[in-house]
Amino acid sequence: MAVQETDGRQTAMRIDMNSDMGESFGRWTLGDDEALLDVVSSANVACGFHAGDPSVMLRTLSYAASRGVMVGAHVAYRDLAGFGRRYVDESPDELKADVMYQIAALEGMARSVGAQVRYVKPHGALYNRIVRDESQAAAVVDAIRAVDASLAILTQPGAVVGRLAAQAGLRVFHEAFADRAYNADGTLVSRRLPDAVIADPAEVAARVLRMVREHEVVAIDGTVVPLNADSVCVHGDSPSAVAMARAVRARLESEGVAIRAFAGDAAASAARD
Amino acid sequence: MAVQETDGRQTAMRIDMNSDMGESFGRWTLGDDEALLDVVSSANVACGFHAGDPSVMLRTLSYAASRGVMVGAHVAYRDLAGFGRRYVDESPDELKADVMYQIAALEGMARSVGAQVRYVKPHGALYNRIVRDESQAAAVVDAIRAVDASLAILTQPGAVVGRLAAQAGLRVFHEAFADRAYNADGTLVSRRLPDAVIADPAEVAARVLRMVREHEVVAIDGTVVPLNADSVCVHGDSPSAVAMARAVRARLESEGVAIRAFAGDAAASAARD
Amino acid sequence: MAVQETDGRQTAMRIDMNSDMGESFGRWTLGDDEALLDVVSSANVACGFHAGDPSVMLRTLSYAASRGVMVGAHVAYRDLAGFGRRYVDESPDELKADVMYQIAALEGMARSVGAQVRYVKPHGALYNRIVRDESQAAAVVDAIRAVDASLAILTQPGAVVGRLAAQAGLRVFHEAFADRAYNADGTLVSRRLPDAVIADPAEVAARVLRMVREHEVVAIDGTVVPLNADSVCVHGDSPSAVAMARAVRARLESEGVAIRAFAGDAAASAARD
Amino acid sequence: MAVQETDGRQTAMRIDMNSDMGESFGRWTLGDDEALLDVVSSANVACGFHAGDPSVMLRTLSYAASRGVMVGAHVAYRDLAGFGRRYVDESPDELKADVMYQIAALEGMARSVGAQVRYVKPHGALYNRIVRDESQAAAVVDAIRAVDASLAILTQPGAVVGRLAAQAGLRVFHEAFADRAYNADGTLVSRRLPDAVIADPAEVAARVLRMVREHEVVAIDGTVVPLNADSVCVHGDSPSAVAMARAVRARLESEGVAIRAFAGDAAASAARD
Repeated sequence: MAVQETDGRQTAMRIDMNSDMGESFGRWTLGDDEALLDVVSSANVACGFHAGDPSVMLRTLSYAASRGVMVGAHVAYRDLAGFGRRYVDESPDELKADVMYQIAALEGMARSVGAQVRYVKPHGALYNRIVRDESQAAAVVDAIRAVDASLAILTQPGAVVGRLAAQAGLRVFHEAFADRAYNADGTLVSRRLPDAVIADPAEVAARVLRMVREHEVVAIDGTVVPLNADSVCVHGDSPSAVAMARAVRARLESEGVAIRAFAGDAAASAARD
Repeated sequence: MAVQETDGRQTAMRIDMNSDMGESFGRWTLGDDEALLDVVSSANVACGFHAGDPSVMLRTLSYAASRGVMVGAHVAYRDLAGFGRRYVDESPDELKADVMYQIAALEGMARSVGAQVRYVKPHGALYNRIVRDESQAAAVVDAIRAVDASLAILTQPGAVVGRLAAQAGLRVFHEAFADRAYNADGTLVSRRLPDAVIADPAEVAARVLRMVREHEVVAIDGTVVPLNADSVCVHGDSPSAVAMARAVRARLESEGVAIRAFAGDAAASAARD
Repeated sequence: MAVQETDGRQTAMRIDMNSDMGESFGRWTLGDDEALLDVVSSANVACGFHAGDPSVMLRTLSYAASRGVMVGAHVAYRDLAGFGRRYVDESPDELKADVMYQIAALEGMARSVGAQVRYVKPHGALYNRIVRDESQAAAVVDAIRAVDASLAILTQPGAVVGRLAAQAGLRVFHEAFADRAYNADGTLVSRRLPDAVIADPAEVAARVLRMVREHEVVAIDGTVVPLNADSVCVHGDSPSAVAMARAVRARLESEGVAIRAFAGDAAASAARD
Repeated sequence: MAVQETDGRQTAMRIDMNSDMGESFGRWTLGDDEALLDVVSSANVACGFHAGDPSVMLRTLSYAASRGVMVGAHVAYRDLAGFGRRYVDESPDELKADVMYQIAALEGMARSVGAQVRYVKPHGALYNRIVRDESQAAAVVDAIRAVDASLAILTQPGAVVGRLAAQAGLRVFHEAFADRAYNADGTLVSRRLPDAVIADPAEVAARVLRMVREHEVVAIDGTVVPLNADSVCVHGDSPSAVAMARAVRARLESEGVAIRAFAGDAAASAARD
């Protein structure tokens, strides 16, 4: 949440930047986690179901601990071949147990290297599914509460899972997407459409700055859409993605916006919903 | 550890009985965990690498919690197709991370249902390997210490992993095998040889009783072999195995031996080594 | 296809009986394949994606070859933990490649033991999905054509995949379900409803006999529904299931119905559609 | 096999160049297969057990077919997390079935795109193991014979698997390693030692040329070691590896050595052993 204290004496603005990490697996490397950890304040760490074997997890957690970057459990469907990007019609009980397992594994390993898991961000197809699917969303909320009710959840504004999590007493934080175009209704423009992704670092940085300062984004049709984001999601799976993330951070900081993890906050978005 | 207090006033003998559990996976069922949990005092629960998907784990942990049965992490090589019975030449770093992941996942899930993981018992090929392999044994010890140094390890007397664990400050408990024939040097008779497994429940019960009372077992060649066991391992993967376990327990109790989990003890075998 | 030749000289009625097989995996056993292979004329053999490791496949194929039982590729989503019973939102290209891989593996192994794969029967969630989903149905049809266009497909009457397969020049055969209740529109009564499954062997046998002789089944509301089946699906995953299958076969044979594999037929259902 | 016809009229020298391919998996990309297929004459294609999902396999086979590159089944232990680089203590029966499955899957898919699998090259830990392990070597030979006895095997000179394959009537081809240092006894210098890998393209090309022309290599201690190779293995998992492969090919061709697949040859190394 970008905070603007307007008590006349000072203005302290800040936002969290989050990115997916630890998505290598065995022989296969993905992303430049070390570079990215110098840019973001929150790391969504894969837990072994869509990516991230235990060795990768341990290494990623160690990096995050050494940089003081906050860690989130990037939980997913059990689908290594599909990288968690394919919807899997798991029953709520299966999904709950799968998510519990992933959170528990990450938390236990994190503790051993001094990193702390503060939130859960569902990955890929699961992330998208529980924006609308009540039953799977409830399973994810149940899983978080069962393993560690102090964990927040990071999702997009308006998601069913956010509403259910807040009702269940979990803290909820909302994210915006740095390089994605928005529709007038606040949803993302589908990747299948042209102009869904914004490639120019300067433009992306300017958009994020407006999100932080004005709590709004200009939709693809020119509409100005209100958008309250506690965190901005940036990508790190290519050299240009890391460069983009750096550009966004540099611009934000030059404008006086601090990049800081959200989950230390006592008050989460949930309180505002 | 069977304790015989010979201070003149009373004799309290007891031993732990442990068995493998939670070895079903998805559609496939193995063993009758509910029946077995009424017999044993310790449950070695599979953690997903050789058996046990998260739903199975959660169910097994709930059963164990409801019966007050102590839980051990039954960690294994990542080998579902081989049920963890095939040696996998993992590097120490890989093995350490794999074991950490399994322990962490089980502990986190256990907490959510009020079960508590008190020890680690490596499974199958890993169990056998670290009886002698220094490097893999050290990896397992490192993993336990990294995740939860309060966990004990359950292995067989004379194992390298027991020695390393004790040196590292972990508590070590030793188990005997109820239905297996022993060689004169205290090792098990290979399953490939005839008479390696004892099928008669009465004979098995009598042997276990002697282990508890006299701390010895009669080897296949007639030699009397000293054997100090904190726990007796029984099988549960067939109806006759459950019947055998019941027979052993009934005989022990009728002779005044209490069946009780070992890991609550302040003093473990490690102290005696 | 039950054939009734009414040329005045003789009446030869016959039907195929099919069942799922080779669904064990590693340490886990499912079903009594050897017993069932003495009952059925077609074996749907799992190909490793939902069940059936290569050793199980080889053993099942050898059994089938020794009994002269026809083999079908029981292809599925890649979902061992869910036994192929969970819909997975694979892209058509992924699904096509996955199905090709499974068919190819089974065919190559079958050849080595003298068994021959004659048809493809999709399994579980995939079976159900391509009854209606055009895009995934087309992917399955493409896969069959790409690997071996001489393979037939076994599905239920009215399925989209049957229509597409016939259009593509593949032979199509239809199955009925021996122990399942039907709705008046020819669909199956959902397993979630009471009376969805018929447990009495005599009743099941009588229903199958009527399917074979009269090409009809009595729906759950009493309606008589026309039903043309080339094959009847029976289960084999429990002792009572095998007993049921035996009862059905005995009754059919006692009434002069021969149990014979369908796919040797020159003319498949496709020709009739 | 480099052939030097010295009948006075002409000299035709040639050698095969092979490289591992299709080692991507799902979201993870490894190697530049398209670039490498313009350099080599044989492609060792992963079959799904250490790398290569069905979509990757199909794409790689299509590329190979379009370039007329010969295909080999790059079979491995079932070990995705370890990339097939870890020894797995499979029983001979398990290993035989696993290898059959992989060969069969690749052959069936290859046929569909007009590629043809001509040989088997075991991968990683399996490759190394069956250089000495009689029992696992025999299992691999049995698997090849069972699925397709017309397939050759590609291994290193002196391997147990080569001897057993030849005895079983399979064709055997031998490979040398372009960029690896050799010991005086013809074995490879361990990668753990310095100077195990030669990084200079010119030096590598010169060594390969000497292998082809003189059938010898200079060992790390200066000894000249006889070496008969039908194929030279080059790597392709990095941009510099592809550059190296190109340099080797260019040098060989400039010296009049043709790069041609070995397995079309009627006479294999086996005949010479």
